[in-house]
Amino acid sequence: MAAKILAFSGSLRKDSLNRKLLWQAGQLAAFHGAEFREINLNDFELPFYNSEIQEVGFPAAADRLKAEVDEHDAILIVSPEYNHSFPAVVKNAIDWLSRYRPNPLSGKQGMLMSASPGMVGGNRGLWHLRQPLEVCGVHVHPNMFSLANAGDAFADDGTLKDAAMQRRLEETIISYIHLIDKVRR
Amino acid sequence: MAAKILAFSGSLRKDSLNRKLLWQAGQLAAFHGAEFREINLNDFELPFYNSEIQEVGFPAAADRLKAEVDEHDAILIVSPEYNHSFPAVVKNAIDWLSRYRPNPLSGKQGMLMSASPGMVGGNRGLWHLRQPLEVCGVHVHPNMFSLANAGDAFADDGTLKDAAMQRRLEETIISYIHLIDKVRR
Amino acid sequence: MAAKILAFSGSLRKDSLNRKLLWQAGQLAAFHGAEFREINLNDFELPFYNSEIQEVGFPAAADRLKAEVDEHDAILIVSPEYNHSFPAVVKNAIDWLSRYRPNPLSGKQGMLMSASPGMVGGNRGLWHLRQPLEVCGVHVHPNMFSLANAGDAFADDGTLKDAAMQRRLEETIISYIHLIDKVRR
Amino acid sequence: MAAKILAFSGSLRKDSLNRKLLWQAGQLAAFHGAEFREINLNDFELPFYNSEIQEVGFPAAADRLKAEVDEHDAILIVSPEYNHSFPAVVKNAIDWLSRYRPNPLSGKQGMLMSASPGMVGGNRGLWHLRQPLEVCGVHVHPNMFSLANAGDAFADDGTLKDAAMQRRLEETIISYIHLIDKVRR
Repeated sequence: MAAKILAFSGSLRKDSLNRKLLWQAGQLAAFHGAEFREINLNDFELPFYNSEIQEVGFPAAADRLKAEVDEHDAILIVSPEYNHSFPAVVKNAIDWLSRYRPNPLSGKQGMLMSASPGMVGGNRGLWHLRQPLEVCGVHVHPNMFSLANAGDAFADDGTLKDAAMQRRLEETIISYIHLIDKVRR
Repeated sequence: MAAKILAFSGSLRKDSLNRKLLWQAGQLAAFHGAEFREINLNDFELPFYNSEIQEVGFPAAADRLKAEVDEHDAILIVSPEYNHSFPAVVKNAIDWLSRYRPNPLSGKQGMLMSASPGMVGGNRGLWHLRQPLEVCGVHVHPNMFSLANAGDAFADDGTLKDAAMQRRLEETIISYIHLIDKVRR
Repeated sequence: MAAKILAFSGSLRKDSLNRKLLWQAGQLAAFHGAEFREINLNDFELPFYNSEIQEVGFPAAADRLKAEVDEHDAILIVSPEYNHSFPAVVKNAIDWLSRYRPNPLSGKQGMLMSASPGMVGGNRGLWHLRQPLEVCGVHVHPNMFSLANAGDAFADDGTLKDAAMQRRLEETIISYIHLIDKVRR
Repeated sequence: MAAKILAFSGSLRKDSLNRKLLWQAGQLAAFHGAEFREINLNDFELPFYNSEIQEVGFPAAADRLKAEVDEHDAILIVSPEYNHSFPAVVKNAIDWLSRYRPNPLSGKQGMLMSASPGMVGGNRGLWHLRQPLEVCGVHVHPNMFSLANAGDAFADDGTLKDAAMQRRLEETIISYIHLIDKVRR
């Protein structure tokens, strides 16, 4: 059975560089035999976490997000960094998910990526994002993929123009799928 | 002129323990000569940060929040921790503020506090919160105040039942006001 | 073939609580079929990392430490926290190891534990320790085991007096060995 | 009275890029009226922290280092990053200092800088270094100065070839001295 990867972007922009990178990661994952499903956090209109809401009942969007996570072995997040940390919309999704028992994130294989128009590539935000995911029991892969100068990085077919970077992205995806396959057996 | 402190809670609950601690901090700050203004993030209905929105124009709520920050010397945040990190609603406010030029947070004196019904007191979330604030140029005070077992910590008049803790809270506030006064001169 | 775990304590004390916890973790690991080898950082007299030394040649102690790592699938570190972070002696060992090519730590399965006489248990230091290990390519297990009030926690036979804690330690070890076995296949 | 700054490098190399940056920072600090004293951690032969040693007595080198800290208002550390974190020798100095009562670091004004031959400039290591310093009560300035591509950055007279960078370094130093002056009054 194929490794099942759920993926989403931390950027809400339609033409986000992070979503371009996510799309290419998905192409490679599918090519290497994984089931890859992208969801868009814009389609899950979660309110900011507030325990008063939870006391009445989980929002329907949280239930749907939880169901998506339950269906998959692994979570790939491609996210920009804001102020050297993660976007609020990503943290909010994690916080809602973490309130279910058992925590649906626990035991998932995680992979973090980022794309940025600048020189640093969003890597610092990914380091901040590891902690709440790891608290939730996600096995976050030590290798992360950060694409700097992403504004000019993509060819028309969606691959990375820089062949060495494209190869490194592919190797990262292969090693990720390989690990998912080993662990879920 | 009195030190002007803007304060808000990271919890959206009405009867939040963090807001109780915030209220007591405000009483002490006022007693020691500061101007203390509490705002409620519930009154600032900020969408999740999305650069597409910013391109059209900052939301009115972001403009109002920025104006509040501009009016004060210092920012006190009393926040729970979710998954060893800060609530999304707090990060979202920081991210919107950080998009104004110059960054309205830059140069402010920051103080972080937390209250939690558990034994750890929310301290780990405060450590995570320091980083985006410091990236924005906030001088976050090294002393933080974390109240563990907060469910039973408050007397009817809003002070902390434990006299030593109440004294430590007061000393923290005094040292904070003292620093604000020195730096703004 | 059994999972091979290399373990060391971040405390240099002879009667360290961390070493007691390490010893018990080793008993459980051996009982559940792992090869468990404890080394003592006192026996590896590494100088503080200085690239001038490396240019002349790696210290013999660094070569020995690298050889130990090469022989094992997994690294268990039981470490106190100093100032909410890791002891220098642990970081220094990581920094020397990280200078070999390829990095001998890369791809190892990591597990972090701590014991502390206080109420917090050393957990904050473990969170700080994750980052340099993950930079080196270690898959640090999301579950960590922090023992608070450790001064009174051990029975004469080295087990934890609190049966629930002993069971949680055993489950942590079992899940760790299980993961090592899956990944190395 | 002039602001008194104690400074040291986290690199033990004689011809370290970090020490070059430290020297230039010192020139600027002296020019702007501060007392600037550089010490070399090579001259303080501290053993790795071990509470057994402390029980017998603090090493003479720790006493000397503490006396240096006591004599100054502020601590400037210029440090490389190793594995996205600080060098062990820096952490070890902090850990020894933190064992004196009261903690000699508490209340000092801190400034962190780094120089690196690579493109990232050592900034990630500085973020890791903030935490143990802040735990010790150091007011670490939110602005940090990280010099990328430092191998070719210095002119023969020790200034930075890039005039804009030199100006930014000078402004960082001025703002630091200004803050020290305000707070110590």
